[in-house]
Formats: sequence, C-alpha cells, structure tokens
Amino acid sequence: MILDTIHSPADVKALNREQTEQLCAELRRFLVDQVSKTGGHLASNLGAVELTVALHRVFDTSSDRLVFDVGHQCYVHKALTGRQELFSTLRTFGGLSGFPKPYESGHDAFIAGHASNSVSVALGMARARTLLKKDYAVIALIGDGALTGGLAYEGLNNAGESGEPLIVILNDNGMSINPNVGAMSNHLSRLRTRPGYYHFKKWYRNALGNSEFGMKLYRFNHRIKTAVKKTLWPGSTLFEDMGFTYLGPVDGHNLDRLCHVLQWAKELNRPVVVHVNTIKGKGYAYAERDPGKFHGIAPFDPETGLVKKKELNSFSHVFGNALTEYARRDGRVCAITAAMEDGTGLHRFAETLPERFFDVGIAEGHAVSMAAGMAEQGLIPVFAVYSTFLQRSYDMLIHDVALSNLHVVLAVDRAGLVGADGETHHGSLDALFLPEIPNMTVLCPSNYTELRKMLERALFELKGPVAVRYPRGEEGAYRDDSGSAPIVCLRPGTDITLVSYGTLVNNVLEAAAELDRKGISAQVLKLNCIAPMEKDCLMRSVRATRRLLVLEDSFGAGCVGQRIAAMMAEEGWAPEKLILKNLGKTIAPQGTVEELQRSYGLDTRGIVESVLEECR
Amino acid sequence: MILDTIHSPADVKALNREQTEQLCAELRRFLVDQVSKTGGHLASNLGAVELTVALHRVFDTSSDRLVFDVGHQCYVHKALTGRQELFSTLRTFGGLSGFPKPYESGHDAFIAGHASNSVSVALGMARARTLLKKDYAVIALIGDGALTGGLAYEGLNNAGESGEPLIVILNDNGMSINPNVGAMSNHLSRLRTRPGYYHFKKWYRNALGNSEFGMKLYRFNHRIKTAVKKTLWPGSTLFEDMGFTYLGPVDGHNLDRLCHVLQWAKELNRPVVVHVNTIKGKGYAYAERDPGKFHGIAPFDPETGLVKKKELNSFSHVFGNALTEYARRDGRVCAITAAMEDGTGLHRFAETLPERFFDVGIAEGHAVSMAAGMAEQGLIPVFAVYSTFLQRSYDMLIHDVALSNLHVVLAVDRAGLVGADGETHHGSLDALFLPEIPNMTVLCPSNYTELRKMLERALFELKGPVAVRYPRGEEGAYRDDSGSAPIVCLRPGTDITLVSYGTLVNNVLEAAAELDRKGISAQVLKLNCIAPMEKDCLMRSVRATRRLLVLEDSFGAGCVGQRIAAMMAEEGWAPEKLILKNLGKTIAPQGTVEELQRSYGLDTRGIVESVLEECR
Repeated sequence: MILDTIHSPADVKALNREQTEQLCAELRRFLVDQVSKTGGHLASNLGAVELTVALHRVFDTSSDRLVFDVGHQCYVHKALTGRQELFSTLRTFGGLSGFPKPYESGHDAFIAGHASNSVSVALGMARARTLLKKDYAVIALIGDGALTGGLAYEGLNNAGESGEPLIVILNDNGMSINPNVGAMSNHLSRLRTRPGYYHFKKWYRNALGNSEFGMKLYRFNHRIKTAVKKTLWPGSTLFEDMGFTYLGPVDGHNLDRLCHVLQWAKELNRPVVVHVNTIKGKGYAYAERDPGKFHGIAPFDPETGLVKKKELNSFSHVFGNALTEYARRDGRVCAITAAMEDGTGLHRFAETLPERFFDVGIAEGHAVSMAAGMAEQGLIPVFAVYSTFLQRSYDMLIHDVALSNLHVVLAVDRAGLVGADGETHHGSLDALFLPEIPNMTVLCPSNYTELRKMLERALFELKGPVAVRYPRGEEGAYRDDSGSAPIVCLRPGTDITLVSYGTLVNNVLEAAAELDRKGISAQVLKLNCIAPMEKDCLMRSVRATRRLLVLEDSFGAGCVGQRIAAMMAEEGWAPEKLILKNLGKTIAPQGTVEELQRSYGLDTRGIVESVLEECR
Repeated sequence: MILDTIHSPADVKALNREQTEQLCAELRRFLVDQVSKTGGHLASNLGAVELTVALHRVFDTSSDRLVFDVGHQCYVHKALTGRQELFSTLRTFGGLSGFPKPYESGHDAFIAGHASNSVSVALGMARARTLLKKDYAVIALIGDGALTGGLAYEGLNNAGESGEPLIVILNDNGMSINPNVGAMSNHLSRLRTRPGYYHFKKWYRNALGNSEFGMKLYRFNHRIKTAVKKTLWPGSTLFEDMGFTYLGPVDGHNLDRLCHVLQWAKELNRPVVVHVNTIKGKGYAYAERDPGKFHGIAPFDPETGLVKKKELNSFSHVFGNALTEYARRDGRVCAITAAMEDGTGLHRFAETLPERFFDVGIAEGHAVSMAAGMAEQGLIPVFAVYSTFLQRSYDMLIHDVALSNLHVVLAVDRAGLVGADGETHHGSLDALFLPEIPNMTVLCPSNYTELRKMLERALFELKGPVAVRYPRGEEGAYRDDSGSAPIVCLRPGTDITLVSYGTLVNNVLEAAAELDRKGISAQVLKLNCIAPMEKDCLMRSVRATRRLLVLEDSFGAGCVGQRIAAMMAEEGWAPEKLILKNLGKTIAPQGTVEELQRSYGLDTRGIVESVLEECR
C-alpha cells in the first residue's frame, strides 16, 4: 500500500508517475471504505482524487494557502496531510471534522462549510501576501454549484480586476448537491464541451518556447494574445470578461494534464481560473450512478451501496409532504429551495408540482427577494432552507420582506443543533435574529403533527412574514398537538417552571417526570410561538413557581430566555431564581445531537441536575 | 409649462414628440429647483429623465410593475405619477420619500433603498404574473453600480434561465456613487463603446419585416441568429451568456431610440436586458462636472452649485482621518469600503495610502469575507460600512470572521436613526445582531475623541472581531473622553438610573440636569461597550437607585436594555421599575434625527417626561 507510506504532502511529491496513479486508486478504496463505516460526503471527494493529488504535487499547502469552498471535497486533502488514522473518528464528537479546520492542521488554510466565500477569502490572503511582501501561492477550490452564489461573483469580480496573483480552480462536475441550475450552469456546460482553449494555449506556449524571452512574450504581449484570440477563439468566457486568464477545460482525472495546467497557472502570476471537469462519484459505480444519494450519506454497505440504517421519517419529509398537500389545495402556494431539494424534503413537491417549484441554486439572498416579489403579487411563497444558510438572507428578510410586511413563509429546517456537520452548520442564531425582525411571526412545532398544523396556519391564517422552525431528524416521544395557543402548559407544577420550545420539550418532559419521582413538582411550559411573545399567560405561570429555567439550543446573548426575563422585569418582577441554559457564547462542535445536548446540560439528566441544584 | 399639465402617466402618453422633449427639459429644471431647496439625490435623477419619460410612454406603471433598484433615480417617476406638489416636502418628516414607496402610490411597485435586489424581486413578480395568469410587464431598473452586488448576479442568473418575460434595464452611467470598480465595470465599458449590436439587430429585424412570419422567424430561429452572431458579432456579452436577449447600448438621452428599444423589449416576451448609456447629472453643468458631489446633496444654490450649509465635521470624517493616521503608523492597517469612499470618510485614506485602500464595489458580503482572509494572513483590515448595509454581511461575519475569531475591525457608520433617508436606511439592528455573534466586541463612542481612542484600541489592543459603531452626523455637547471602562457613570444620582450609549448620552445628560432642577436625582450611566457586557458595575449602580430607564434608537426585541434586564434577573433581582425606551417593533420613518427622537420619546423632553411619570 502506497497510501500507508504517505505521512505528509512531501511523500506525495516523491512518488513517480506509476506510484501516483496507484495512490489515486488506493485513495478511492480508502474513501469508500472509511465513509461506508462513518457516513460522510463521499461523491464529491471521489471526484476530486486526482485534482487533490495534483495540487499536492504542484503546491506546498504548509505555506501556499489552499482555500476550500464548502469543503465537501477535502477528505483526500486530509488523508494526504497526516490525518489518515483519524478517519475512523470522522464527524464524531471530538473526532476528525468533515470540513477544513485550521485548528486540525496547518494545511487547512481556512474553515469552510458555507458556500461561495472561497474566492473572497483567497483574495484577502493574496492581498496580505502582496502587502506583507511574502511569497506563497493562494488557491481557491470552488465547485460549480457554489458558483451560483452571489458572493462568489462578488469575489471573482473584485479578484479579476485586482491583478493579484491567485488561482481559482473550478471543480466542475455539473452538479451542486442536486443537479445544477441557472444560466451560469448553462454557460459552464458550453465550456465543458468545447475543444480545449487549453490545448491551443499549450501549443502556442510551446511554440514560443520555454526561454525567458518566450515566456515574457507569452505573458505580456497582449497585442498578440488578443489578436490570436480574436482569430481563433471567437467566444470569450465569462471569466475572461471578469479579468481572469482562463485555462481549460481540463480532464480532472488525468494527472499529467492537471499537474501541467496547475504549474502553468502558478507561473502566470496573475488571476487565473482553471476549469477542471470531474465526475462526481468517480470510480465507485454506485456513486457515479447516483451522485446525489452519495453526496452526503449515512453508513452503507460498500458491496451493495445500500444504506445500513433504514431511512426513517423526519421533519423535512413531513414538511415536504404537507406542503405538497397544501399546494394542491391552493394554487398560490409555491416552494423555493436553494439547491436543497432533497435535504429540505421537497422532491415530491418538485415531482408533482414542477411549475410551482423553484430551485434557485445556492442563492439564499435571491430566494428571499424573489419570494418577496411573488408575495407582493399574490402568491404564497415558501422558502425551505437550513437555519444556518438562512443567515445569508438576513438583509433580504429585513429590507424586502419585513419592511413591506409581506406574507413570505420560511420553513427553517435544521434549527438548533444539527450534529455531525459541526461548527459551521448549527442553527444557533435563527431563534435570536428572526424574532428581532419587525412583523415576523416565529412558530416552533415540537413534532410532526404540530409541524403540519403550524405550516397550515402559516400559509392560510397568518399574515406577514412567518417562520416555522424545526430541527434536523425525527420527532421524539411527545407527539400531541398542543394547539394554536402561543404558549401551553404541558404539565402543572409548583416548585419550578421549565420553559422550552421545539423538540427540546421531550427532554424537559422526561426530566419533569424524573423530578416528580424525586419529589420536585416542575411545571412544563412549551412556547409554540417565540415571536411575537405572549406575556400574560407566561407571567402568570412563572409567578406561581417563583423559579424559572429556560432551555434552548441557541446562543445566549439575545436568546428567548433573556427576552422572557426582560418581559418580567418590565413588569417589575424577577423570579427568585432564573437559569438560562443555552449555548452561551460557545460555538458547538460536531457530535451527535444527544452528545452535544449532554455537553450543554440540555439532556434529561442535565436538566434534572440543574433543577436539583436550585431546588435543594 | 407642460409639466404642470401632467397629473398621471396618461398625460405623458398624450404628448407629441416636441412636447415630450420640452417635458424633459422642464423636468430637469424642476429637479434642480426642488432639490436645491430640500436636498436629495440629484445627479442620478438628472441622468434618468428621458429614460423615465420613455418608460411611461411605453408601459403603464399602474399595472405593469416597475421595480427600482436602490431608487436614487425615482424622482422623475414620482413627478410623473401625481406627486409633483409633494416635492417641497421631499425627505422630510411626514413628507414625500426620496425612495419608491408603495404606500405613497400604486405606481411604486416595491420599496427600494438597498442595492441589487431589483432583478430578484422582478423575477418573483414575473413568476406570479405567469402562475396567476395575469397580463402585465415586469421591469427592473438597475444602475451599473448595483450590478457589482452578488444579489443582482443571483437574480440575473436565475432570471436568464427562467425564460420568464421580464425586462432588466441597465442604466449605465459608469458610476455607482463613486466611480465604479470591478471587472464587471470593465466589461460594461467595453460594451458601452462598441458600435451598437442594437443597430444591427434593428436592421436585421426590419429586413425580416413586421409580418407575423418574420417576427416568429426573428424570435425563434436560433440557428439563424446564432450563425449571424458568430459571423458579425464575435464577442457575446455576459448577459447573453446568462440567457438574456441583450439590446444595446442605447443612448439614454435619445427619446425616440429609448421608446423604440423599450417597445421592442416588451414584444420579445422573454428575459431581455436593455443597456442604456446615461450621463449622471445630465443637463446641469455643475452636476455633470462633479456627479459624486451631486449624488446626494444638501440644499444648494442652483446658480452657483454651492451647498448652502457649510460642511461641518462628522463622525465619518473623524474616523477617516484617524484611520489614516493609524495606518501610517502601522503598515498592516487596511481600509475597505463597499462603494462608499466619500460617505464613510475614507477619501483621505484612499489618496494617501492607495495600496492599502480597497473599494470592492457594492459587495458588503465580499468585503467581510475578504477582510477575513486578510486578517488570517496578518493584516488588520477595517471595513467601514453603514449599519444598514452591514446587514448584507451577516452570515460572513458569523461564518468567516467569528467562527475563526479573526481580528477584523468594523467601522459601523450611520448606526441608529439616520434621518432623511428613512425606513430602509436606519441602523436599527446592529446593536442587536452584533452582540449576539460570538467573540464580537462592540464599542460605542459618544464623541470624536472617543471614536479616535476606541478605534485605536480596536486596531492595536483588542483581539478578535471588533465593531466600533457611531451615528450619522456630528457630536453633541458631551465631548469628554470617558476612558476605556466598559461602563462609566457620567453623573451620580439616587432616584433613577438612566442608561444609554453613543450620542444619545447628550439627551440623557441634558435630561438629568433638567430633572435635577425638578428635584429628581438621576444617575447617568454610559455604556462604552455593549458586547461583551460588564455585569458587576452595572448591577451595583442600578441596585442603588432601584429604578432603571434604558434608552436606545434600535428595535426593541433583543435590545441592550433587554439584555441588561436579563442579566439582573439571572442575579435574582429586578428593579422596582424598568422602562425600555427604543423603537419597539416600529420601522422609523424619515425625518430629522431630532424629529424622530422626539416621536419615540428619546429627546430630552421625552426622557424627562418618562422619568417624571415613574418617579412621581
């Protein structure tokens, strides 16, 4: 095994051509083997094997800065930079992250997780390099999916003009997570199929020779370049319009060509786009056949490609099915996703009502502004989006939706702790920032039944912007419909009041039962609506017990518990004891939701212990 | 006067050619005359006179939806849609808004103020039109400056592919507010100077005739179109790459051509970009000569072009000068602006340290992500930005800056109430959302001296992300340096504690003096730092008076006052009386800052009255 001998990128550089090919084959087996056990992002990584190996042959990531976009394609990089043995802990609590993390290795230049930021970050690094008179290359590695995000365009627009030496590698597999959409995607397809500007350039360069004079001529003689381009190359690319030198398309599974074009890009010493065609899932038949399924996958049988754990129901599926039903009932209801048709449970909607289903690509800002236009003219748009990605739409929610009090419905999936994706993916902020936006109603179902009912209310009863927020995964033991009151008492009690919302009520109810056995009578309140907040009922209930514990899986500053406390203080009253249990100022790591809840004392035992401490 | 006879767009349609030309001349005089009295956005509006008149001749904005981007060019539209007489109240409390406002007129399709959203909103409207089987045209009117924003690209990318009939009018004056930057801008310049694809298309279309067959052939015969394009038109435009039909460039001061091309765009019944070249400030010599100065201008003498009120010092100027000084001292300090060099006071920095000054165009998200890359590699980037536009960077602040705890400095200008720009421009949220972001320090200078000192601390003493927030305009009577303590007592008192931050302390101090004369002893606390919040000193001070009034010009849910109340409640204590005075859930209208403060009871008299009420 060559892979066993690779402890750092230097070992990759030392291989001969044959060994390097073999390394690629071994890496593919390694990826399938590891991810089949732990689950993770497989298909993108399989597609980026040769590209990553080539990067490590041409660059030195201990000083050169390789900035991943999103980071779904960083596993090979991790395996080649001394982290092979950690793969058994991939995406687990305390284990190897599925995304680039500078705290893990100096070879990881920047964190990644949200899309389309890599060119901006890389440009910042390139500017620092130039101003501080350092000497290292800066490379942004971005997938074609992330290119639909406006941030990538802002970065490209500025980087192309800057003249800063930096290399943008476009890893183009013609997919984002689901097949790609948008005009840019069409533009890329056209580029993909054309017969190599790269080849012409290569010929031209060789014709000029490798002499210093020839290189100078090649690099600087704009007149010749332009003339040649006009004659032989009628259609300039989007990237050249933006100021980049465009190299490509290059076969992303041909090591020699990749090394050659990367070396060339490095020498050009200006903004360069390298367009690399790759096949998502390459080399593992099941993944090539269904790259969407193998994008992010649970543990599976590598022989059959079948996922081991049977797929269960989830909030996302319930949402998708319910929305489809409501949309059948009312022709104004539309669904919008930002490249997350599967993740948000909208595949059935997309299949059955394609004319009212809009996948806008990775463009959360546009999704919200478009929804505002739709609502203004009489539709009922529903934007289904992960909480953490909704952060991208913050200003659009305020400016385009809230100021005009438009009836846009947000289906906020993955609210709260999300688990294995870790730091960059938790929905730690929506419970804070959504209630602060004027006119916004925020509903918090605790189970599938409530999700269906609250979604129905959001669509057909409520006015203005409405968010329905729900967590990743499945419902718990609490499956009642608590009704439409903004706040409900799930269990009476006299010693302390426990307040929570969403699925955390499961832990709270369990804790209350446990406390009961220990002789402590805990009242359990569930907030169905965290904005606007209902005051009177809450005040009455809390006053009765004099002690209050508010549980949330959100950041602490500005949390719901603080707003409840302030509300009571405005009435001139404070509970004898107030405890706010939440994520505080900490950024939650990866792990199962249960592990994370435990580490924050939000699990049943943690809640019981907190209460015992206060009621003793 | 023809203008006097124009009460609705129907009157514009009824004019003959000569009368229409005269109308344009009269509109220019009207604009100069009105804006010279009230102040406002002049140069963009002067450039859009013929374009707006042409739009009203071709479309019917009572049903067709004209979506302005930013809206700096909506004055002529307002004058032609029944709002001429209101111009004396432009930008005043209760008066005519300087931006499109649907509540003012059915001819205003959507609000505007923040850049780059128009294509997204228009696409939403176009989709609604199609799904609900209505029949109206949808037009987005966007300046070339707003085209640097990623949101515009997301919108164009999706709209081009959608096939939805919609017209994007690119009003290209080669400027945003300051001269334009970026690769897109270079692309536009190239288009601007080329000899009319429009003319060729026009000829080609005429050659095919106006018969139904000819039109069909023109519209659908892709083979012919492509062949012709390849032969006669080698360089395809960015917009065509995106799926639009591109018409232009058209002289934006030639009414006939404008009407013709708009009519044509309407008939094409698919996504069309109309590229219109205009001259910012057109027809008023002073504005043509210095369009930047006349972009947004205070009342001026129309004869001389001189602003009446002498330009005074401001927080922006003090910031810009201080930053230049600090940057001279330390070569790592860089300045970043998103097309607001003048507005943020950075012109001196740009002049004296151009290699460390980065104007990224209207691209606030990119500005922050780029700053993150710069900070990661050892620079000290300072992003100077208006509070309301920083909302666009919300996710980038969290994902790219805060998660890695990078030392990025935010100079948050126009924090709090901004005045005449109204609803879309107030900085009502930064005091809420910035403190919620982990690792963020938020400093609040109350005067120029403090701004200089706090900026210095932010640059050279503090770690991680630091925001320094300050309001629009000038300092008040309070000019002391209160030092570096997070909370300071400006005046001792025993009956009530008044807490505020920023320049609101001026009103609070005045109110405390007034209260003193009425026999009420008010303690005045000033928060220099609202994140992280200092607890002990605050608790001690507030406990002593038992009454607490917190004053802020931010929204209420999640405000600083709520966080203080929660902090006290966690200590098991509530003041006898707590009053939080802020903007509540209301969106502040336009008016002078003084008028707005008065309407919220945040002026001296309002504060006195609140206290008297509570202490009686």
